[in-house]
Amino acid sequence: MHTEQLRIDPADLLQRLQVLGRVGDTGDGGCCRLALTDADRTGRDLVCRWMRELGLRVQVDPVGNIFGWRDGLEDLPPVMTGSHIDTVATGGRYDGNYGVLAGLTVVQALNKAGISTRHPLVVAVFTNEEGVRFQPDMLGSLVYVGGLSLAEAHATRAIDGAVLADELQRIGYLGTAPLPLARPKAFVELHIEQGPVLDAEGGLIGVVHDLQGISWQALSITGQSNHAGTTPMRLRHDAGHCAAAIACFVRRLADEMGGSQVATVGTLTLHPNLINVIARRAELTVDLRNTDEALLQQAEQRLAAFIAELAAAEGVRIGSRPLARFTPVQFDAGVAERIAGQARRLGYDARAMTSGAGHDAQMMARLCPTAMIFVPSVNGISHNPAEHTAPEHLAAGANVLLHTLLELAAR
Amino acid sequence: MHTEQLRIDPADLLQRLQVLGRVGDTGDGGCCRLALTDADRTGRDLVCRWMRELGLRVQVDPVGNIFGWRDGLEDLPPVMTGSHIDTVATGGRYDGNYGVLAGLTVVQALNKAGISTRHPLVVAVFTNEEGVRFQPDMLGSLVYVGGLSLAEAHATRAIDGAVLADELQRIGYLGTAPLPLARPKAFVELHIEQGPVLDAEGGLIGVVHDLQGISWQALSITGQSNHAGTTPMRLRHDAGHCAAAIACFVRRLADEMGGSQVATVGTLTLHPNLINVIARRAELTVDLRNTDEALLQQAEQRLAAFIAELAAAEGVRIGSRPLARFTPVQFDAGVAERIAGQARRLGYDARAMTSGAGHDAQMMARLCPTAMIFVPSVNGISHNPAEHTAPEHLAAGANVLLHTLLELAAR
Repeated sequence: MHTEQLRIDPADLLQRLQVLGRVGDTGDGGCCRLALTDADRTGRDLVCRWMRELGLRVQVDPVGNIFGWRDGLEDLPPVMTGSHIDTVATGGRYDGNYGVLAGLTVVQALNKAGISTRHPLVVAVFTNEEGVRFQPDMLGSLVYVGGLSLAEAHATRAIDGAVLADELQRIGYLGTAPLPLARPKAFVELHIEQGPVLDAEGGLIGVVHDLQGISWQALSITGQSNHAGTTPMRLRHDAGHCAAAIACFVRRLADEMGGSQVATVGTLTLHPNLINVIARRAELTVDLRNTDEALLQQAEQRLAAFIAELAAAEGVRIGSRPLARFTPVQFDAGVAERIAGQARRLGYDARAMTSGAGHDAQMMARLCPTAMIFVPSVNGISHNPAEHTAPEHLAAGANVLLHTLLELAAR
Repeated sequence: MHTEQLRIDPADLLQRLQVLGRVGDTGDGGCCRLALTDADRTGRDLVCRWMRELGLRVQVDPVGNIFGWRDGLEDLPPVMTGSHIDTVATGGRYDGNYGVLAGLTVVQALNKAGISTRHPLVVAVFTNEEGVRFQPDMLGSLVYVGGLSLAEAHATRAIDGAVLADELQRIGYLGTAPLPLARPKAFVELHIEQGPVLDAEGGLIGVVHDLQGISWQALSITGQSNHAGTTPMRLRHDAGHCAAAIACFVRRLADEMGGSQVATVGTLTLHPNLINVIARRAELTVDLRNTDEALLQQAEQRLAAFIAELAAAEGVRIGSRPLARFTPVQFDAGVAERIAGQARRLGYDARAMTSGAGHDAQMMARLCPTAMIFVPSVNGISHNPAEHTAPEHLAAGANVLLHTLLELAAR
């Protein structure tokens, strides 16, 4: 058999997705397996059993990251793939799980064909990617690459008050593998897009070249409550108007800047929030993202200038509080080119794209050459029980992963 | 004693304002007595007790309007004054309360001087003037004049889900007085201006000749929730953006139209209201007012056209539900002239003006000759704990009310 003709077994992949999806099943097609809960333990136990069945050597590190190791022909740095299996409270069955289980399906295909690689192959499951129960998100991969100390990670408190180290101990995943286990030759993460681009624009395989920087801030506007009927427009200090003006500016800013710039006002509340009272106070959040750090800073500066002008013109006070700030990540061009080449060779449409969401790959990129493969999310829906990717798209992504790993691990 | 020299007792008026202001005291100088809540009941009980102490016959009609009746020398239609005692959630101590309690102070002055009038005198307290808990506003006076059926009013649902008839029953104000109790010879409402004109321009007594038309609508926008990072601007159906765009348009509309046109978005809520999720749904209200019916219609039409364009451009659905619509009101020139004449005779500056707020008087104007008396609001602040009117202005307004009522009721 020519290696070029090798394909994963779609039934194997779908079956694993279905079985893992039953753990934490929310009854509406969705999944709830918050990190280090009992449901997460059950999911981890299942994945570890599958790893062992596939002949992988399972190792767990002190932050609970799980690695399934397949020896190479030579003692070289491993090629690594993987993702996470924790979910948000209203999660779907694909986010994270798909990348992990596709890794297992790749191993299954290699085993069946009797193929060995020069470099070892590793399938990783990182702890607490979602950041719902413990913060920050991508905690396991962040610790793996040395971005957060193990001591700090262990002391992290869950939203329910539990301490991370205790929870690792409790569910049996406070491991002893070296941290990091290895510096991989390369890391490739396969993931559903979680956005609408591939689905809307007909691409099938997304070759992810970079990942957006994120700037989150909370704005608080203090004006003056007054009667909506008797207060002439020129005498108003309307916090509600200012909140709306900022939201409109933010949209205009993204439209004008173009490129990868996106901007969202997702939360907005008025006080007292009464039909005939000019709002005395407004709270809103602004989410700015760009793949270019200089442009992201430009967006932040333009917003700050607009806010200062607006506050003076309307006679209100506007305070700003930073909530999160991540610089953009550039993935490895070499790894991305291999993904694109293999996708085309397999006959799939491939398009270069940017990740708008955070992923473990953005942490791994600090340690080794890294890139990502995306497959379409129907209607771009994710973090939602309605999250869906067509079976043929799931198989296509796994086949691109298979051949990218084979090329990197050099048969 | 010459009737012309009769004056109300300022201490009596201030004392009543203070005591009623303690009911629903928000601790910051303000009051919260939303219509038909427990706090409103306590306020009503207090006013009814005061009415009885002054010898007034208390009658409550089936929509909860309260009337304190002072017999006249002859069986003639009564001369009526009054206002409301419900407040907004962040209300002051004068809005509404002043008109009711000044009416009681007038009765107190007449009792003390032993003065009888040919026509009966009635002090009215109308239900749910503010329209915060139940809509429409001015509900009690609207039902009184036959503008809304009792059945419809009874079925009205509060923002907290309660039904108006149940709440009237619960607080003991589902009365049995005839509806309407009487067609008055005239109605005079004394009120704080709630706007900045008298305070800024030095007038003392406002003689209110007309009242702005009001158009209230609730808008509901349905877009699509999506990830704020992964969804390109061009693929968004952002309900939150549309809500902000409407609020900005509404401000622009008022600025462009000028004159008496005012426009306010006082309520705005987003769903799911999360920092990194594009809002799937937004709810907002628009309050438009103008003294000219044709211009008010023009404002409504321009808003409707903007909404239609916006919905098409963003790919969202925007539904509109009218909440209240009142055409501008012309008050009775004869009653207004008597107010102006008595104010001048008492040595006060009087100026003709327009009301920018809705008042029960605008409903009563459908039934009988009606006009209003305004006193200054410091800095025009109202619907706010900082709402204030100087004691001497409160007394001046009550004295103008006293002599206008005496003239109308014909001693």
